[in-house]
Amino acid sequence: MYKVDLNCDLGESFGNYKIGADEEVIQYISSANIACAFHASDPIVMDNTVKLAKQYNVSVGAHPGLADLVGFGRRKMDISNKEAKAIVQYQIGALKAFSVANGIEMKHVKMHGALYNMAAKDLALALAICEGIYEVDPNLILLALCGSKMIDAGVSTGLRVASEVFADRAYKEDGSLVERTRNGAVITDEDVAIKRVIRMIKESKVETINGIDIKVKADSICVHGDGIKALQFVKKINQAFQKESIEIAALDKIL
Amino acid sequence: MYKVDLNCDLGESFGNYKIGADEEVIQYISSANIACAFHASDPIVMDNTVKLAKQYNVSVGAHPGLADLVGFGRRKMDISNKEAKAIVQYQIGALKAFSVANGIEMKHVKMHGALYNMAAKDLALALAICEGIYEVDPNLILLALCGSKMIDAGVSTGLRVASEVFADRAYKEDGSLVERTRNGAVITDEDVAIKRVIRMIKESKVETINGIDIKVKADSICVHGDGIKALQFVKKINQAFQKESIEIAALDKIL
Amino acid sequence: MYKVDLNCDLGESFGNYKIGADEEVIQYISSANIACAFHASDPIVMDNTVKLAKQYNVSVGAHPGLADLVGFGRRKMDISNKEAKAIVQYQIGALKAFSVANGIEMKHVKMHGALYNMAAKDLALALAICEGIYEVDPNLILLALCGSKMIDAGVSTGLRVASEVFADRAYKEDGSLVERTRNGAVITDEDVAIKRVIRMIKESKVETINGIDIKVKADSICVHGDGIKALQFVKKINQAFQKESIEIAALDKIL
Amino acid sequence: MYKVDLNCDLGESFGNYKIGADEEVIQYISSANIACAFHASDPIVMDNTVKLAKQYNVSVGAHPGLADLVGFGRRKMDISNKEAKAIVQYQIGALKAFSVANGIEMKHVKMHGALYNMAAKDLALALAICEGIYEVDPNLILLALCGSKMIDAGVSTGLRVASEVFADRAYKEDGSLVERTRNGAVITDEDVAIKRVIRMIKESKVETINGIDIKVKADSICVHGDGIKALQFVKKINQAFQKESIEIAALDKIL
Repeated sequence: MYKVDLNCDLGESFGNYKIGADEEVIQYISSANIACAFHASDPIVMDNTVKLAKQYNVSVGAHPGLADLVGFGRRKMDISNKEAKAIVQYQIGALKAFSVANGIEMKHVKMHGALYNMAAKDLALALAICEGIYEVDPNLILLALCGSKMIDAGVSTGLRVASEVFADRAYKEDGSLVERTRNGAVITDEDVAIKRVIRMIKESKVETINGIDIKVKADSICVHGDGIKALQFVKKINQAFQKESIEIAALDKIL
Repeated sequence: MYKVDLNCDLGESFGNYKIGADEEVIQYISSANIACAFHASDPIVMDNTVKLAKQYNVSVGAHPGLADLVGFGRRKMDISNKEAKAIVQYQIGALKAFSVANGIEMKHVKMHGALYNMAAKDLALALAICEGIYEVDPNLILLALCGSKMIDAGVSTGLRVASEVFADRAYKEDGSLVERTRNGAVITDEDVAIKRVIRMIKESKVETINGIDIKVKADSICVHGDGIKALQFVKKINQAFQKESIEIAALDKIL
Repeated sequence: MYKVDLNCDLGESFGNYKIGADEEVIQYISSANIACAFHASDPIVMDNTVKLAKQYNVSVGAHPGLADLVGFGRRKMDISNKEAKAIVQYQIGALKAFSVANGIEMKHVKMHGALYNMAAKDLALALAICEGIYEVDPNLILLALCGSKMIDAGVSTGLRVASEVFADRAYKEDGSLVERTRNGAVITDEDVAIKRVIRMIKESKVETINGIDIKVKADSICVHGDGIKALQFVKKINQAFQKESIEIAALDKIL
Repeated sequence: MYKVDLNCDLGESFGNYKIGADEEVIQYISSANIACAFHASDPIVMDNTVKLAKQYNVSVGAHPGLADLVGFGRRKMDISNKEAKAIVQYQIGALKAFSVANGIEMKHVKMHGALYNMAAKDLALALAICEGIYEVDPNLILLALCGSKMIDAGVSTGLRVASEVFADRAYKEDGSLVERTRNGAVITDEDVAIKRVIRMIKESKVETINGIDIKVKADSICVHGDGIKALQFVKKINQAFQKESIEIAALDKIL
């Protein structure tokens, strides 16, 4: 039987500002990437989100991002590798405090937004971040873009790594995602997206934007938690997986 | 032989901004209260300061403060007890990450500035904070103002508590500090200050601003790390203690 | 014919975070209090909100608040009068830039949240703020709580002042608002609220929570822009005013 | 007689953190670029710095930067042109408030750090910023890197532009500065630096790092305000200019 993790970014509200349908989406996923108050969230939201994950028995991971609240951590910043390492360690530690306080274990870590994209392509940066993770907790599972430098860095650092694929994004031949600005970058037809995901899981293959098959490793599927459509899509994936005998399971049940 | 801890706030630089003579002062103290990037510091400074404490074999503690960088955490804010608990857990977790990453143990926690003063007088707030500390790490030593509500809250929560006295501040009959705005609030004569400290340690007594003796418990003396005078004073205290056979030792050697 | 201003806090979104139904509410009010990126908003949101106000011919005012984004400027902070003056001048200047850039005139200023409440009761603080306003633009109209120290301070500073009343809040005999935590503090029955407002405008009287009539001056009514109920209430007020021959007009048409 | 402006970044302190010898350096310059609380400074520091400039009769300009306090605005961030325009307008407006409040006129604007460097090379970004400046105050003088896209953008927008050169930096053939990371990027010999400056003013020429002369336009010389060496260098420049009959004058006396 096939197994796959379904991960989603949660806990992105901030103070008086609410984002996401966390309480609903969390019922259909296996891993929650919880924002750590740099690009989104605040300490109370973090605590509440950890409690929510505990309630629904969803695996908890840290989701460190750049210190850019107004940009939601989505804008590339030229930070040094040393700073990247330090902000990742800081954020992992902060989320771990809430995990410990709530009596559950933080299981994984996944970079957010621009930090995710920067580290996917820059091995030195990726190594600094992975070293930072390893120093704080060598048992953490690194969740990173399939085929990226982060996967390489995680392996060479000695971390367990989980390879992430995207249901709704087009791929290039080198395994990278087609830039959002290009036509066809986002797969809007939900049925097509789900078929692609199932093939990635069962055949470890995906068709690129140019019609060529490439190999992928689908340990985890990234789904979104924002908007009604996102919730519907997550439900649909759950139904499709049930029909296809694909079990949704947290990362430590898969690796 | 008498034993006392000498604690100092360190790691208060931020980005391009430098504060404190950390590298010099740290050689004369036993415990460092390290800022956690809310009222001062940033992740790189935190990491550097933990490394410095390790190098000089000084005990490391978290120094959580209010999220008020421009006010250096010194201005009272009406935050809820729930938020106080959450920001303390967050900051403790963040510093713990750097302690673990550098292979040393975080030993204590001391509130900063307005949070220190607010919690000293407000039992409900103090209990929320102490509960927060206990949930994250029940082995942490709480360092708090002698005779304050924080001491009561720490004891009732089950934390080990260390009682802090001030060398350079005048006391009132109820054991609280004379407000800085009042005449005579700060003891400027270093020799007088040192004599008072020695009496607090050896006799557990201090003379109030009105000339009456009150009881104090001096597990730890707070010294300052900012300015040339501060450094000289710390050196003087060290010399005086040596002459008086008072050993300077970290909190876990004292309690 | 009676005239009154209807004012509403707008432009409170921030980065990726959206708050308020600005585009709908703005069609039913005469004055917009625009957040200035301290307690809410960011420069792009400010510019967009000024453009929106221009489009709907609504009078623009600055809405300075405390530098507390996570608390939405609603938590009392012990800032100095000097700092209060400086942050108000800063924020007024920032909004004025967008007004000038969009070719409209900034007409008024109203403090937000905790700063509004603090200044309503503290004459020295109120005077510092009013002096700050006057120095930057002596033509600005100060919109402040009816009967508050801010009204006194505005008058003595030489500013034109507009007196604000609340449709949905209970009053005490001294003219202050009943604390939100007390029973009956908020008038939830919309018809009752509207009757009270009309009486405040036509008779300059309101019944306090203890059933005694007090005098009020209703130059402007504060309405809320958040939530579907708020929008409905604003529409209802508009209809009621039309029936009662109360004209809705911006502050400079009233004073 | 030759005339040149001497400009320096001032007002970079923040809250409890002090940077720069503002009170001393200001006595030797003609234009102060005042930080606007994004990359450095806070509203009180801004007000104090404007007062200082008034006291020493130094021309005041806004010095907008990226919203990156921990990075001092020195790290490239991928912000949109729209956001760049908005943050520049916001910061200009904020400083203008303090200028008006203190009864002096804000005369120029100069971008800071990464924003300065980004706009020097990116015409679309430069145009967005210049449009932003023009909309807020068409009389502001744009101070920008000699030969940069900002100069082009300022001219085409209709702003008066002043061309800035650096005393202590090596130049490339295309007129851009040699990257700080390269050998020889910084001219450390003060006498050499001063000779170069004088030649730039009198002959409009500078020798590049490869020994070739290029043309430069030296309306203003950028000097630094941080550190004892900086102060000494500013004094030396003053003395050299006196000997060479070069008058130091604010930008509006030069253009």
